[in-house]
Amino acid sequence: MNTPADITITITDMLAKYQKQINGRLEIFFDEKIEEALRISSYTQEVVLNIKEYTLRGGKRLRPIFCIYGYKCLADTDIEAIIDASISLELMQSYFLIHDDIMDEDNLRRGELAFHIICKDLCERQFGKNKSPKFGVNMAIVAGDLLEAYAKEVLIKSEFKPENVNKALAAYTGITKKVGFGQILDITNERRASFNEDEILTVHRLKTASYTTEGPLHIGALLSGAKEADLQILSNYASPLGLAFQIQDDILGLFGVEGKTGKPTGSDIREGKKSLLILHALKRCADDEKELILKALGNERLTADEIDVIRAIVRETGSLEYSENLVAGLIDEAVNAIKDSHFRTDAKEFLADIAYFIGSREY
Amino acid sequence: MNTPADITITITDMLAKYQKQINGRLEIFFDEKIEEALRISSYTQEVVLNIKEYTLRGGKRLRPIFCIYGYKCLADTDIEAIIDASISLELMQSYFLIHDDIMDEDNLRRGELAFHIICKDLCERQFGKNKSPKFGVNMAIVAGDLLEAYAKEVLIKSEFKPENVNKALAAYTGITKKVGFGQILDITNERRASFNEDEILTVHRLKTASYTTEGPLHIGALLSGAKEADLQILSNYASPLGLAFQIQDDILGLFGVEGKTGKPTGSDIREGKKSLLILHALKRCADDEKELILKALGNERLTADEIDVIRAIVRETGSLEYSENLVAGLIDEAVNAIKDSHFRTDAKEFLADIAYFIGSREY
Repeated sequence: MNTPADITITITDMLAKYQKQINGRLEIFFDEKIEEALRISSYTQEVVLNIKEYTLRGGKRLRPIFCIYGYKCLADTDIEAIIDASISLELMQSYFLIHDDIMDEDNLRRGELAFHIICKDLCERQFGKNKSPKFGVNMAIVAGDLLEAYAKEVLIKSEFKPENVNKALAAYTGITKKVGFGQILDITNERRASFNEDEILTVHRLKTASYTTEGPLHIGALLSGAKEADLQILSNYASPLGLAFQIQDDILGLFGVEGKTGKPTGSDIREGKKSLLILHALKRCADDEKELILKALGNERLTADEIDVIRAIVRETGSLEYSENLVAGLIDEAVNAIKDSHFRTDAKEFLADIAYFIGSREY
Repeated sequence: MNTPADITITITDMLAKYQKQINGRLEIFFDEKIEEALRISSYTQEVVLNIKEYTLRGGKRLRPIFCIYGYKCLADTDIEAIIDASISLELMQSYFLIHDDIMDEDNLRRGELAFHIICKDLCERQFGKNKSPKFGVNMAIVAGDLLEAYAKEVLIKSEFKPENVNKALAAYTGITKKVGFGQILDITNERRASFNEDEILTVHRLKTASYTTEGPLHIGALLSGAKEADLQILSNYASPLGLAFQIQDDILGLFGVEGKTGKPTGSDIREGKKSLLILHALKRCADDEKELILKALGNERLTADEIDVIRAIVRETGSLEYSENLVAGLIDEAVNAIKDSHFRTDAKEFLADIAYFIGSREY
């Protein structure tokens, strides 16, 4: 295994290599879907063209890569087929992002327009401004639903044994269910005064761990014919890593650079998202600071200066450092969970490297 | 085969028998899901409780019944297993209805509250009125997504051969894709001045035939191991029947009794839906009547008296009679498509009976 300094180069190169392969597959997939949609109408084609642009405009492709490496833990044949199948996870990701941005009323995604805004603009160009936001939202709901169908289609048509495909589809369904439950809690938690660590951890487990790390790893592993014991080892790696991913996300949401993260710094605070980072600060800060933070949460008109004040509180209470240490500890826990396993060596090394990468990422 | 007079009794009894079995399965399914959701939180449980009430509050259960009879065309063993699997279609139906009502801003479904209104009320009881409509819509988007996961889960866990399950899942995906395309056309057509018969037929084919008749029949048939030729015969039955179903729906939308149909008469006109019934009337009526109809389409404030005027025009131009005759002709076409096939006799008889039932239904 490499030292942290080497890792940055190696893993970045590896990720770039897979990102290129995954994007190439997505290109081919969408070009077929654009053809298919054109056979119906130019209107359906236009929506699919926009879905393609939206999906290909960026993103780390972490979920397909985890799917590929869940497979590679146990198998080293049919690598092309697993890369083909892995794009299912990126299609699922686009589906969740589109529906998420509608719910959160976010206008930007990956530094460009959210899907419902693209469709609102489309409406205005083609049919005028009357009720164009509603048109945009409706089209985006349908586009999300369509992507969900695409994601399944890719798995169903993959070249693996039908019984393995079935198990992978069941894992896929498990993700969508957990994300649904996580969303329900997110929507209710935003309205509730209570701010409870267990509840925050439950949402992270449901939304991030299941969907970013554990689910994709399980899907890949199941396509190779994984047994229950294999899945358990992957879960022992995926759970702490998923939590670390989310905490790092919260840190970047408040301290990250907008040009790198692709979303406005502090938008989590404006949306009233309750994170462990903020919870820790609330426990340690003075009463007037506590009041200030609680007022800021969910205040859509919060200025950059006001966010600076919150940033200072989070730093001064030691909450930033605490969270950074927590991330580092969780990454170690993840890496330790697989290092003595029977998984293939190159897969174990890659999964360790990507865990360190996630812990130190800036986007 | 029975004469139309007998059929009304027989088919109603048969439908009631299956509805009872399907509802029983849905009860058991949802009670398990409510338990599962409670293990996460009382908030997730509450949403699933509402999904259960919503799904069980009514509905003809035509889609699961078509799924069962698609299977019965070719097989007469494992009937319990196909009834278990068939509820997948009803879960899918709930998913589409919930998302549909959000898009159409319909407040009622099956004579009671639409799902986003249920959730808006839930928000107001628990957290107050602030932004409660948005809470309702967000929760309903998630509830739809959750139902979609449930629908797949039922198929994946069904007791049939994995390769047959995979093919059924591919057919399921085919339905969701077609409905998505149909929705895109629906959303755009509402904005467009043009009123084109081909375009209306395309939407009917995508949204009704695929989703109400052809898709469910194919899923059932594929679970029994159907071949391509079997599917083709089922399509020859399902396509005219799906179109007849939609035209009958349009007739009921304008001439039906609200107490039977469960939705306000004339709501299609208020929503600006373009139907063959209206298209035919537009071609035959006087210029001032034409202007009146075009103005009425999409006018949400249309009064009952104004809808009466449109009803009179549709009747006087012979469009109602024309549509009724069209339905009868399509039903005959559907029945003829299967009568000489190699399908099992009791299934052929039932499919003929249900076709006549659809052509004469009042709800």
